Amino acid sequence: MACSKFEYVKAYERNDALLPNTWLVVRIDGHSFHRFTQFHKFAKPNDDRALKLANHCAKKVMEEFHDIVLAYGQSDEFSFCFSRYCQLYKRRESKIVTNVVSLFTSNYVMAWKEFFPDLELQYAPSFDGRAVLYPTDQNIRDYFSWRQADCHINNLYNTVFWCMVLDPNSPKTERETQAILKDTDSGAKNEILFQQYGINYNNLPELYRKGSVLHRKQIQSIEASATDGSPVVRRRKVVVIEHCDIIGDAFWTENQILGGSA
Amino acid sequence: MACSKFEYVKAYERNDALLPNTWLVVRIDGHSFHRFTQFHKFAKPNDDRALKLANHCAKKVMEEFHDIVLAYGQSDEFSFCFSRYCQLYKRRESKIVTNVVSLFTSNYVMAWKEFFPDLELQYAPSFDGRAVLYPTDQNIRDYFSWRQADCHINNLYNTVFWCMVLDPNSPKTERETQAILKDTDSGAKNEILFQQYGINYNNLPELYRKGSVLHRKQIQSIEASATDGSPVVRRRKVVVIEHCDIIGDAFWTENQILGGSA
Amino acid sequence: MACSKFEYVKAYERNDALLPNTWLVVRIDGHSFHRFTQFHKFAKPNDDRALKLANHCAKKVMEEFHDIVLAYGQSDEFSFCFSRYCQLYKRRESKIVTNVVSLFTSNYVMAWKEFFPDLELQYAPSFDGRAVLYPTDQNIRDYFSWRQADCHINNLYNTVFWCMVLDPNSPKTERETQAILKDTDSGAKNEILFQQYGINYNNLPELYRKGSVLHRKQIQSIEASATDGSPVVRRRKVVVIEHCDIIGDAFWTENQILGGSA
Amino acid sequence: MACSKFEYVKAYERNDALLPNTWLVVRIDGHSFHRFTQFHKFAKPNDDRALKLANHCAKKVMEEFHDIVLAYGQSDEFSFCFSRYCQLYKRRESKIVTNVVSLFTSNYVMAWKEFFPDLELQYAPSFDGRAVLYPTDQNIRDYFSWRQADCHINNLYNTVFWCMVLDPNSPKTERETQAILKDTDSGAKNEILFQQYGINYNNLPELYRKGSVLHRKQIQSIEASATDGSPVVRRRKVVVIEHCDIIGDAFWTENQILGGSA
Repeated sequence: MACSKFEYVKAYERNDALLPNTWLVVRIDGHSFHRFTQFHKFAKPNDDRALKLANHCAKKVMEEFHDIVLAYGQSDEFSFCFSRYCQLYKRRESKIVTNVVSLFTSNYVMAWKEFFPDLELQYAPSFDGRAVLYPTDQNIRDYFSWRQADCHINNLYNTVFWCMVLDPNSPKTERETQAILKDTDSGAKNEILFQQYGINYNNLPELYRKGSVLHRKQIQSIEASATDGSPVVRRRKVVVIEHCDIIGDAFWTENQILGGSA
Repeated sequence: MACSKFEYVKAYERNDALLPNTWLVVRIDGHSFHRFTQFHKFAKPNDDRALKLANHCAKKVMEEFHDIVLAYGQSDEFSFCFSRYCQLYKRRESKIVTNVVSLFTSNYVMAWKEFFPDLELQYAPSFDGRAVLYPTDQNIRDYFSWRQADCHINNLYNTVFWCMVLDPNSPKTERETQAILKDTDSGAKNEILFQQYGINYNNLPELYRKGSVLHRKQIQSIEASATDGSPVVRRRKVVVIEHCDIIGDAFWTENQILGGSA
Repeated sequence: MACSKFEYVKAYERNDALLPNTWLVVRIDGHSFHRFTQFHKFAKPNDDRALKLANHCAKKVMEEFHDIVLAYGQSDEFSFCFSRYCQLYKRRESKIVTNVVSLFTSNYVMAWKEFFPDLELQYAPSFDGRAVLYPTDQNIRDYFSWRQADCHINNLYNTVFWCMVLDPNSPKTERETQAILKDTDSGAKNEILFQQYGINYNNLPELYRKGSVLHRKQIQSIEASATDGSPVVRRRKVVVIEHCDIIGDAFWTENQILGGSA
Repeated sequence: MACSKFEYVKAYERNDALLPNTWLVVRIDGHSFHRFTQFHKFAKPNDDRALKLANHCAKKVMEEFHDIVLAYGQSDEFSFCFSRYCQLYKRRESKIVTNVVSLFTSNYVMAWKEFFPDLELQYAPSFDGRAVLYPTDQNIRDYFSWRQADCHINNLYNTVFWCMVLDPNSPKTERETQAILKDTDSGAKNEILFQQYGINYNNLPELYRKGSVLHRKQIQSIEASATDGSPVVRRRKVVVIEHCDIIGDAFWTENQILGGSA
């Protein structure tokens, strides 16, 4: 069969190699997750099971793609930072982005039962993804600061919002609550939480307030040698999940996330 | 919190809107599926369960994205053709491609048990995807001809190959078989199949030889009217799965896949 | 000298090949031409010398790049349409666009003296350029209709505007004139021209009202044969400059600009 | 006139904004300059007039575009480095590249007579251009090292080549000379130059061996004050042309080309 006469269509594919020597962020977002969380009755404002499921998926992605140096998740989004030296798939954008999205999705469905033992998955969830390049160390740090600041702002808002809506004594409609919170600053929101609901925002779990930070940590273990059973120190890198501040310097210098300078 | 000082990083995102008024193909491929098929002991050369699972996923994708006018699957790949008039997500490439890949993946895992009732999914499968634009009706038809011609070529080869490797009387190694088949044309392969294994290639299932073609068909049903129970003719479009030739004209004119001319 | 250790930087170049089988428009515009026209005291609203110089440059560009099937100019802009089959420079965008811009510019300066015999070029003019793809014949026709409609709208406005500003009896300031014309439709502008200045817009030169259309026309001449001097009919294509309507069908069918259908 | 019905074609333009915070090189090259140099009988291997004309044009480009921090020229090519902070034309690629190419071209033709007083320009020269992004200071330095190393390699080759071809005692054909030089290293070429032609390569003009380096230098002059005529120190930046080494550190630290660190 004359395959050749059709093969010209291959030339219509575009070479989408990303600029070398730049930090590459792949950010994925839940697709229509407002509907998905309602269908699956996610706890408000934060559902531990859902957050931990997402963290599990992100860990699986990092274990598959060794060029990822850092991942950060909050709400229904996750950002993966590939090393500026990464040559995966010759840095072809769609190849990298779709593989990350697909592997995350796949693990989300596979591990659902483990994190939601009492709730059947009602329909297939999906995620979209995009790639963004950041040339300098400062840029990539600012990117993650942006996401963590966003986590804080949204979480504070959502915490107050759901306290008011779900208030057993004087529940408000979502619309009323939006109107009340519309022009409050973070101080005012903290005040409402404390005065009306006895909640000290800073005592809430860091999982909610800081989001989830995944990176690689070298650990060492003492194992029995295969030859003579004598104790041997083994070092390897594992992906750890933390809920720490990534806006300040401490996290970055301590963990040498970005390696040497650019 | 000063969110604004970090928000500049958003400007690093690239606008990846695809050229309007062109046919858009999103092709997805199984990632490392050679390994995946071995791990899950797929039947060779074709595994009905796997092919039907993929078709199921493609149907779900088409039911979600109404701009898809045609999908074609073979082996571990599937191509989705979006209408040239499609404005989904303002034609943003990564948004479209990742949503298709993710939804396909999600359904693949969710429906696994239904198609492989006796076999646990061993690990999370994943797919990659890419977008390609085709300006004219002829181009898009040639694209699908290319894939179906590829299906034929590969399937004929694989059919002979696995007959020889799995031959109970005189099994050959994969390497030996490759060497034997290396320079044979399709006539020679048909001959081996017929002479040595009594197989008439053209009698094999069209699912294997032609791959799977999904498109929308208007069906009509007679239903009882909600008001007085009298019979009412209702028309709606459903996604059908066929295994027909899409290289010739018949399929395209009969089904008005591409609508009016460009 | 170790050239190789630096050569890696070449890999940072991006492949910018344009989608095949699409009409390619390269549109160039005078850079800061408002200032340029003032410096060189161009006649208002139209300067014949400048329009003819631009046409001359466009003709030179078409004589160099045989894939250009049509060019259209008005004011300080020119659009060049490359054939959808064009493979020039492997369709690399920057290569095509910069060559067109540069050759146009070069001819503009070289031929200045010929078109402005009494006026020294005061400083180096420049042009910018961009590439736009159009998938169908209808799209590319609409592109040129857009530019010719724009020519008409601007020229009608500018004609009235400069009549009023330069009116020897009751000159108005540019600001006053803008205010007066702000909300007039084309009928009202025609009326002002006719009533106040005795000008029938439709009698103005087509060069102003229609812009300039360059395409290739086959001409034939009778020449003496090289061998025996007998008359021989010779055919060749030359670039012609017209000022005709390109919004209607006549021009396109008569001149077979777009060749066969896509 | 219904302009609006055609205006949709504007949406086919692509947003080609370049990644922020990266060094941007615009490199322009003479188009078919082999032919151009023959037509205008350029001196071989280097024509001072042509090199100085190109330098003049590059200076004009730098005087127009203040974001250019460095330019480097050799043979018929010139590279312009825009600051990583440059926001010119919102960093739109085609806008930046075409303006540079056009302004360079325009000045080339305008100033031709000044540099080639005895030779009429025979036809319109043209240049092509491209943009390349470099994320780090090291990358951009390596880019310029690459070009200067290339200058050295080509110039050494061309110097020997033309000595041999133009040798009044025993002229060789270009083909013979190519064959002789094919496998020589730089030591051998230096040796031929010295032994056969008495030329010490290192004594040749730096203009040939190093190419031309344009950057901004702060100069100060003592001028009479406008008010009382007393001497006033004035500082301003001017574009200077040098022929120095840019591979080593000295040039970069001395002139603070790249400003602070990234």
